[in-house]
Amino acid sequence: MVDMVIKGGKIVTSEGIISAGIAVEGGRIVAIASDQHLPDGTQTIDVGGRYILPGVVDQETHVGSKNPLEQDLQTESCAALAGGVTTWGFHLPSGRLAIPPTGETPFFSQVLPNFVKVGNQHCRTDYFLTPILVEEKQIKEIPELAERFGITSYKFFLQLKFAYKFLKKWPAAETTYGFKTDFDDGMVYQSMELISRLGPPGIACFHCENWEIARVFWDRLIEEGRKDAAAWSERSPHFCEAGHIRTYAYYAKQANCPIYINHVTTEESVQAVLSARADGVRIFGNTQAIYLAFSCDSDWIWSPPLRDRETMGKLWQALSRGITDTISSDHVNLIVSREELLKHDVWTRPPGPNRADMLLPIMLSEGVNKDRISLPHVVQVACENPARIFGLYPKKGTIRIGSDADFVVVDLDLTRKVNDNMILSSCSWTIFDGWEMKGWPVMVILRGDVVMEWPEGEIKPKIIGAAKGRYLPRVPGHASYPLD
Amino acid sequence: MVDMVIKGGKIVTSEGIISAGIAVEGGRIVAIASDQHLPDGTQTIDVGGRYILPGVVDQETHVGSKNPLEQDLQTESCAALAGGVTTWGFHLPSGRLAIPPTGETPFFSQVLPNFVKVGNQHCRTDYFLTPILVEEKQIKEIPELAERFGITSYKFFLQLKFAYKFLKKWPAAETTYGFKTDFDDGMVYQSMELISRLGPPGIACFHCENWEIARVFWDRLIEEGRKDAAAWSERSPHFCEAGHIRTYAYYAKQANCPIYINHVTTEESVQAVLSARADGVRIFGNTQAIYLAFSCDSDWIWSPPLRDRETMGKLWQALSRGITDTISSDHVNLIVSREELLKHDVWTRPPGPNRADMLLPIMLSEGVNKDRISLPHVVQVACENPARIFGLYPKKGTIRIGSDADFVVVDLDLTRKVNDNMILSSCSWTIFDGWEMKGWPVMVILRGDVVMEWPEGEIKPKIIGAAKGRYLPRVPGHASYPLD
Amino acid sequence: MVDMVIKGGKIVTSEGIISAGIAVEGGRIVAIASDQHLPDGTQTIDVGGRYILPGVVDQETHVGSKNPLEQDLQTESCAALAGGVTTWGFHLPSGRLAIPPTGETPFFSQVLPNFVKVGNQHCRTDYFLTPILVEEKQIKEIPELAERFGITSYKFFLQLKFAYKFLKKWPAAETTYGFKTDFDDGMVYQSMELISRLGPPGIACFHCENWEIARVFWDRLIEEGRKDAAAWSERSPHFCEAGHIRTYAYYAKQANCPIYINHVTTEESVQAVLSARADGVRIFGNTQAIYLAFSCDSDWIWSPPLRDRETMGKLWQALSRGITDTISSDHVNLIVSREELLKHDVWTRPPGPNRADMLLPIMLSEGVNKDRISLPHVVQVACENPARIFGLYPKKGTIRIGSDADFVVVDLDLTRKVNDNMILSSCSWTIFDGWEMKGWPVMVILRGDVVMEWPEGEIKPKIIGAAKGRYLPRVPGHASYPLD
Amino acid sequence: MVDMVIKGGKIVTSEGIISAGIAVEGGRIVAIASDQHLPDGTQTIDVGGRYILPGVVDQETHVGSKNPLEQDLQTESCAALAGGVTTWGFHLPSGRLAIPPTGETPFFSQVLPNFVKVGNQHCRTDYFLTPILVEEKQIKEIPELAERFGITSYKFFLQLKFAYKFLKKWPAAETTYGFKTDFDDGMVYQSMELISRLGPPGIACFHCENWEIARVFWDRLIEEGRKDAAAWSERSPHFCEAGHIRTYAYYAKQANCPIYINHVTTEESVQAVLSARADGVRIFGNTQAIYLAFSCDSDWIWSPPLRDRETMGKLWQALSRGITDTISSDHVNLIVSREELLKHDVWTRPPGPNRADMLLPIMLSEGVNKDRISLPHVVQVACENPARIFGLYPKKGTIRIGSDADFVVVDLDLTRKVNDNMILSSCSWTIFDGWEMKGWPVMVILRGDVVMEWPEGEIKPKIIGAAKGRYLPRVPGHASYPLD
Repeated sequence: MVDMVIKGGKIVTSEGIISAGIAVEGGRIVAIASDQHLPDGTQTIDVGGRYILPGVVDQETHVGSKNPLEQDLQTESCAALAGGVTTWGFHLPSGRLAIPPTGETPFFSQVLPNFVKVGNQHCRTDYFLTPILVEEKQIKEIPELAERFGITSYKFFLQLKFAYKFLKKWPAAETTYGFKTDFDDGMVYQSMELISRLGPPGIACFHCENWEIARVFWDRLIEEGRKDAAAWSERSPHFCEAGHIRTYAYYAKQANCPIYINHVTTEESVQAVLSARADGVRIFGNTQAIYLAFSCDSDWIWSPPLRDRETMGKLWQALSRGITDTISSDHVNLIVSREELLKHDVWTRPPGPNRADMLLPIMLSEGVNKDRISLPHVVQVACENPARIFGLYPKKGTIRIGSDADFVVVDLDLTRKVNDNMILSSCSWTIFDGWEMKGWPVMVILRGDVVMEWPEGEIKPKIIGAAKGRYLPRVPGHASYPLD
Repeated sequence: MVDMVIKGGKIVTSEGIISAGIAVEGGRIVAIASDQHLPDGTQTIDVGGRYILPGVVDQETHVGSKNPLEQDLQTESCAALAGGVTTWGFHLPSGRLAIPPTGETPFFSQVLPNFVKVGNQHCRTDYFLTPILVEEKQIKEIPELAERFGITSYKFFLQLKFAYKFLKKWPAAETTYGFKTDFDDGMVYQSMELISRLGPPGIACFHCENWEIARVFWDRLIEEGRKDAAAWSERSPHFCEAGHIRTYAYYAKQANCPIYINHVTTEESVQAVLSARADGVRIFGNTQAIYLAFSCDSDWIWSPPLRDRETMGKLWQALSRGITDTISSDHVNLIVSREELLKHDVWTRPPGPNRADMLLPIMLSEGVNKDRISLPHVVQVACENPARIFGLYPKKGTIRIGSDADFVVVDLDLTRKVNDNMILSSCSWTIFDGWEMKGWPVMVILRGDVVMEWPEGEIKPKIIGAAKGRYLPRVPGHASYPLD
Repeated sequence: MVDMVIKGGKIVTSEGIISAGIAVEGGRIVAIASDQHLPDGTQTIDVGGRYILPGVVDQETHVGSKNPLEQDLQTESCAALAGGVTTWGFHLPSGRLAIPPTGETPFFSQVLPNFVKVGNQHCRTDYFLTPILVEEKQIKEIPELAERFGITSYKFFLQLKFAYKFLKKWPAAETTYGFKTDFDDGMVYQSMELISRLGPPGIACFHCENWEIARVFWDRLIEEGRKDAAAWSERSPHFCEAGHIRTYAYYAKQANCPIYINHVTTEESVQAVLSARADGVRIFGNTQAIYLAFSCDSDWIWSPPLRDRETMGKLWQALSRGITDTISSDHVNLIVSREELLKHDVWTRPPGPNRADMLLPIMLSEGVNKDRISLPHVVQVACENPARIFGLYPKKGTIRIGSDADFVVVDLDLTRKVNDNMILSSCSWTIFDGWEMKGWPVMVILRGDVVMEWPEGEIKPKIIGAAKGRYLPRVPGHASYPLD
Repeated sequence: MVDMVIKGGKIVTSEGIISAGIAVEGGRIVAIASDQHLPDGTQTIDVGGRYILPGVVDQETHVGSKNPLEQDLQTESCAALAGGVTTWGFHLPSGRLAIPPTGETPFFSQVLPNFVKVGNQHCRTDYFLTPILVEEKQIKEIPELAERFGITSYKFFLQLKFAYKFLKKWPAAETTYGFKTDFDDGMVYQSMELISRLGPPGIACFHCENWEIARVFWDRLIEEGRKDAAAWSERSPHFCEAGHIRTYAYYAKQANCPIYINHVTTEESVQAVLSARADGVRIFGNTQAIYLAFSCDSDWIWSPPLRDRETMGKLWQALSRGITDTISSDHVNLIVSREELLKHDVWTRPPGPNRADMLLPIMLSEGVNKDRISLPHVVQVACENPARIFGLYPKKGTIRIGSDADFVVVDLDLTRKVNDNMILSSCSWTIFDGWEMKGWPVMVILRGDVVMEWPEGEIKPKIIGAAKGRYLPRVPGHASYPLD
């Protein structure tokens, strides 16, 4: 007799699809078996022929970056569950983890206990942290943070290098970042040296986009009187992204440090990743789901910007061919109405909002159901690969004996028309409003508990139970997370 | 109640090691679970804390190339089982499948029924065929062989291109190949076009070694009076191997055909593989286990030749870093005594013999137990990757629900000193004689039946039961083998 | 008082254009000076403001390959003079130098004395020889030919490697080549080793075009019933040329041998040349003028074939940007009427004819006067670079003190409409018939003698005086030709 | 009758060596002829069998950067003449051209008239200017400076990007630079766009050395207590130089701008240059002579630092193989005694001094007379190539009709032991003190006037006549300088 048995479904891992069920005990998977060979369960869930995927590991959200962390967690982690996310990776500067948040830069060791405390109270997904380093003094914490808090991944907002040159001109800068930066290649290089020494799964993550150059186009477009969303994209040409990848991949090779490119949004970047690999660099590429769904002829702006439709096709290809490794949401919560946001032209409004709740629906509707990627490959890029790269695999990201019992039940044939009423985020509207999407998560299980359900006929997803998310320290020196 | 339950062990897949057991029914895996959650079994095997690996998928053997196939199968497939191999890939020209074998080149469609019949009678492993194409007329069979026999991989002995120039000078040529070749780049290119059209898992496999150039060094070394084994290596410099890889990877890109390099034995080749990948070629690299165990200062000769110790280190690195994808045995059965073989100088004796029975021991003793590679990574390169590349995954190469119940039980701490009495091959001696090796397969299960056991204290492995190997057709158009 | 003074002109070298004249004594340049500072001359030529270029060094002609050498020299060297050529490089197999010509392969040392004798009697240009090696036995002559005959360049018809596979199907093969070939990469590699040992200006020249693969397209197009000239081009896709360049550049690197690609006709080839350079290979690229003038939608066929107009633009670019190094005529004399030639479809007629007499007019009319290349750059690619690469510079290819007094006087503004009556070749018609071309050579001087003149109003160029061409041995070990 | 005739010598150009003399009229070459065919001259110089080279074009000096320009010109341009330099390229920020010099950044258009005035009064060589841009406001001058002052080359001190991070820690920073910098990639990119639009000979010049990273090693070495000169080299590893080349070559490709790497001092940089070329970038490489003469185990420090002896060999190779294009002196005048300078450890003293007077002697003694480079190739890298790249060819850098009559007479067999008494620079000592060097300039002629002579037996070179140097505006849009 186990705690829970899930049957009547098809298990999807990166390796393929099998007709089998799962037994859960103590929040972990204890058996995977043909339905008839499963042990009995206290609770039995029949998923009615639907697909059972591992919970999504969304390695990048900036929840807490614009609103108080505690507040954001309460709503946004619901949105994450709605999108099938069971493990969430926070990218935050230390100032946002302080109470109250501050533009100054405290040490992470000072604010991490608070982060874990607040997170464990309010977050509905399990979660880990990728600190955004913005000042050189923070580097020396790297070994200690690994040991005390299991932190093995770091993020660099390379676009903000030398930011004082251009940020003051950008009215939305404060809203968007709200922290000071002061770093150079020396800080990045030293960090990579230290991260390299952690051993696997140590990794340096980069937002690659050379704004020192983009600012030139920025000024020109403003001068030309351009205000359309396409102008936002033109201001940051493909080569600004690929240029950064080339430069820092070269320095990563010198520091012998694995790196992760958070936004591969152009084919020039795809080629830069391939070239770095041939040069012996251990490099991974991520594409936010948003770049696969919206083109630069839409109303929305992000950083890096949306690209044209031809490029979107290239990004789907790079993903399905295994050149880029992961997808993520880059969820940011802007509490502002659609009308209010669109009142501003592209030069004064902040980028966003991104939608974690649409992470999996995009992959299912735009991807699987349009034959751009297979369902097992979605599991690879949305669950397994991010878990591997960030040191959580096989605890997270897969369906194996001993792994956490995190699942998303997916109905690949279900069609829903998106509308603002579905939205759980405190930004109570969605850029997908009006989209008809086929393929939806209908149930989410976190460590053996059903935490989200969206029954046929309900207007919006139901979040179930109290917040039970837990902070996930990684284990330095272990490429695979050691299941005890 | 299932047919068989295996417990008390640790399951190893490419994803890591878990403490769990396996239930088998009808020759397939029906449950993977913590021991206490396994169903009951008619037969229960307790492996006493040992590791349970998927059966090894050894994609390259030339059994039947020197002796009648029927005869070779009877002894050599026993040797394969001793080495943990449960799926064997035969590389043979059509002439060796004819009865009696012939130097002429029949069509594969004519001889395949016989191959399957003989194989199903005498082979103790499951098996598939990678036809060696030697004449242009054979190309047109490619679509038909895919449809009728599930053949999706083809081999090209590129070293024999233009062979009449040099083969007549080599006394061992007839023994080594025993068939006619007459092909050029046009035949290779057309084949790649046709293989590409099969869709996955279609793949062209290449022995890369430019003998048109090696023959020049060959002549020089003979002229200098060199007869030592190192001379055999010098006669085929690294660039002859890497040159072929570069050339045919470029043509593969044009034909849009995935390719497999059967012998990556130099760092120049490793770089050629990396460069081809950056150029968008779908290319896989294999290293025979023998190149990881013996250097060019030993007595033995192969094609390509053994390399120096520094290069061996580079090959281990390429393997453990995931640059090369697979390992295999290249098993060839030379029925000749050690003394007889060594009587001949390197210019007159045939290359070989290779030893399938040492495939897994090399990886365990020289690899895992010397910290050159992890046990899960051995499973990746010896089981999962070859199964994937050759279209048999997840039926073979992994431990999943629905997969064939093929296992090797491994005792990683067991040390044995190799001697000729252990040998099951009809070549009743071994080049490993005297090696002390730590880490051995002690039991092999094929589709639910124990087929090999090597209990403590026994001189040699015991082969159990009648031959039950079955021919494995692949499924064109399916990158993953569809488990029904 | 010197023998000859040329004044009233503008001297063009690769370095630019200067207003100056030239004094000649004993067939060599003894002074270059502003007209008023020139010494007096026995003969004074005023070129009336026209340009004075060095005589063209056309490194590739196959004169003597289809007709007896003696006969061809008498007419074709007149055509060469008409095209501004004063130094001609013959590419011939040894069989064509025997008297009578033979399909067998004599040693070059046997036939060279005759070649020099016949050449010195009948050739109107100075000339040198690039032997075409077709059999391995010829390799051993390389050191001796360098020493005795100053031969430092060798040609390999790579398209004929393994020729028996496809040549027998081609009715025009005998007419086109008329010699046996039997070679492999080993012969090429050994040759490169020996050529490398000569030191500069040793160079291996390659016709790169993989006919082993082209034959496949050849057969398909015939099967489809295609007979148009474009089909001839389709039968040898770009990658067949670039593939050969990549392969042999890699082997050249191993042999440390400079190489020369005789026909860079595609952008893939341009990239292959650039990549080889980045890889440290000393590689030069040549483009026949014909590829700059005719596209694949014309009536004519060559090997490699004509390409499309977009590719032609890329070839002009590669030339003007200094990526390709030289141009040449590839002059071949087909004595057959236009009507007779065009009666045959593209599969049965021989490639050609190429026109040395149009070499310079193409560069002037299509190049300089259409702003695709500057006049000094024409001198670089048509005179200086070929002289350098083939070891004749600065004796040939430039206008310097001590250099041979070889000049072409060019009228850049002269427009002539081409017609068959202008033709001096024994193939008494021209593929340029009807072209209106602007920019013509009007006088040619060889070692101080006016040998060609084409006065206004004359129907065709006048050839002046007796044949005075001399064989030019190169000086092994001397990158620059030592002027005594 | 011409002004001057030079005979009895051997003329050296990049094309080779010819036995001939030169006639000069009005400061320009009017005839090059065998001695017997030269016109008569008012003045006749017999160079007694020595070599006549074009005057050296030294594209980089920082004269005026540490001392008042007027003062430096008076002494240092004498030193330049002593080193065979007749054309000197000044690299200066605008602040140094103001009177008095200022740390602020005036516009170049404000200070250039003064620069030309002072230069024409005091400079003994002809000269041109490569402005060092340090602030963004200067960019907009680029088109105007081209038009008004013939300025087509610009320099970027990339090592100073983001300099405030590290410069304050360096006591010698003020002495070394003495100006403010404030620029980013955006300024560099915009400049490249504008320079590209000038057409040839527009070029962006880069000091490539990533000090953002070097500062890290800098701090570590200081912390370790290292003070030796080798520590200065270790503080700026090879990859900091190559990294910058890769990054800015990529952006240059986007801006379609030719670039010039001022200091190629490592083999990683050589490879970066080669790779950029293969990628289609128009890139030139320069090596200061000092890197060919001193290794990092000497007492001296420069930026970039001296390298080890093996690397020096690689740099000679890159130069002699034509991979790097030019050499220069980087002459900086430190008026400080040897003892005073060496009193400071490497962390507090300024780099330098570099010696223009040793530019040619290094190439002759260490290069030609040690068989590392040929004399014509020295002319190519020291005269012709810099003249070409900076738009002065063929007015400068060669010996042709119409070119300026700038010559260096070289005695290749003369051996002198260097000592401080030879020094014309106001830094009255030399780092070469005690070196025995073979091969010296013995006479320099500038536009037809003998301006330096160093007769046998004299202690030091004699400077002759008044300063007659003239400012050299380049001609935008003209790759070759138009000789009227």
